[in-house]
Amino acid sequence: MDAKEILKEHISKFTFLSDEQLDYVFGHFNLIHLKKGQSLISEGDFVNHEYFVIDGCLKAFYLNDNMKMFILQFAMPTWWVTDFDALYNKTRATINVDCISHSTILSISNEDREKICHEIHEIEHFFRWRTNKGYIALQKRLLSFMDNDAKFRYEELLALYPQLYNLVPKHLIAAYLGVTRETLSRLHQAKH
Amino acid sequence: MDAKEILKEHISKFTFLSDEQLDYVFGHFNLIHLKKGQSLISEGDFVNHEYFVIDGCLKAFYLNDNMKMFILQFAMPTWWVTDFDALYNKTRATINVDCISHSTILSISNEDREKICHEIHEIEHFFRWRTNKGYIALQKRLLSFMDNDAKFRYEELLALYPQLYNLVPKHLIAAYLGVTRETLSRLHQAKH
Repeated sequence: MDAKEILKEHISKFTFLSDEQLDYVFGHFNLIHLKKGQSLISEGDFVNHEYFVIDGCLKAFYLNDNMKMFILQFAMPTWWVTDFDALYNKTRATINVDCISHSTILSISNEDREKICHEIHEIEHFFRWRTNKGYIALQKRLLSFMDNDAKFRYEELLALYPQLYNLVPKHLIAAYLGVTRETLSRLHQAKH
Repeated sequence: MDAKEILKEHISKFTFLSDEQLDYVFGHFNLIHLKKGQSLISEGDFVNHEYFVIDGCLKAFYLNDNMKMFILQFAMPTWWVTDFDALYNKTRATINVDCISHSTILSISNEDREKICHEIHEIEHFFRWRTNKGYIALQKRLLSFMDNDAKFRYEELLALYPQLYNLVPKHLIAAYLGVTRETLSRLHQAKH
């Protein structure tokens, strides 16, 4: 499938758009090809776009004062990624986003998202439900961190991204779970 | 201000509704008075409503297998609260919501929220931005837990709810921060 078909199928899970509406909506996105390791957002940047993944894999991560990495999210095909805090509040980025593998993404600016939401009620509906789903996923992730339950986080990760364990370096999976590499191996062996 | 005025002022921060539209929207809410300690949602319940706080204070919390309490959110006036996971996915509640003080709230059902979002584009816009704001707040909270930064969480709490330290029992504030009572006292003294 090409990028337009993938976006269309994704939007159609939440709402109905005619082909004409979809053409119009798609016209507000830009297709971007990124190389492995390439950075999309760096801490301190002003952020004016959000990104929909067509192919590849990105990570959104935070570095603390000791340069320890915490992975907020892996972004696989049909996931959305950006620094939403910086984007919505027009502040500087506090997180980073870069590519784990060669990736193809669609970008849309803040202004264009608001424009098409205003023009097409169904698109506003789509973005509301997209964020609702993101809110729920974040809440589950927060609860697993509050309860310090690495086993739950590991199982949640496998449910969200079944192929991830084979695609992503182990130190990044450990940074997502907030555990050491040794703990990750133990969790993986216990599961299999 | 009465409940309708408070809801109107809240919605008006995100979008414009005529007085007729607001009357219509308000007609889908029910006013509920709750006593201190009264439960609104218990783990295992089916959840069909979300709640907008007019007066008082509620807490959304999770109990782990050892009955340790983790507070996800305090809900003060003009905040929204429910188990969004259970509400949106039509599953049983995994969190609890109860009243820290006598509280007055407005409730709206899942069906009525979807109905007014479908009927009035501006209301769909309002709910999209309401959830966007909630998403950002959750992401900040998640980052502070990943980095295990209790000082940051304490300052974030005071910024979100300036009057809370005097209103809410200290053991609940400690359960929000994920620290002991002793650590909470130390954080409080360091700040003042």
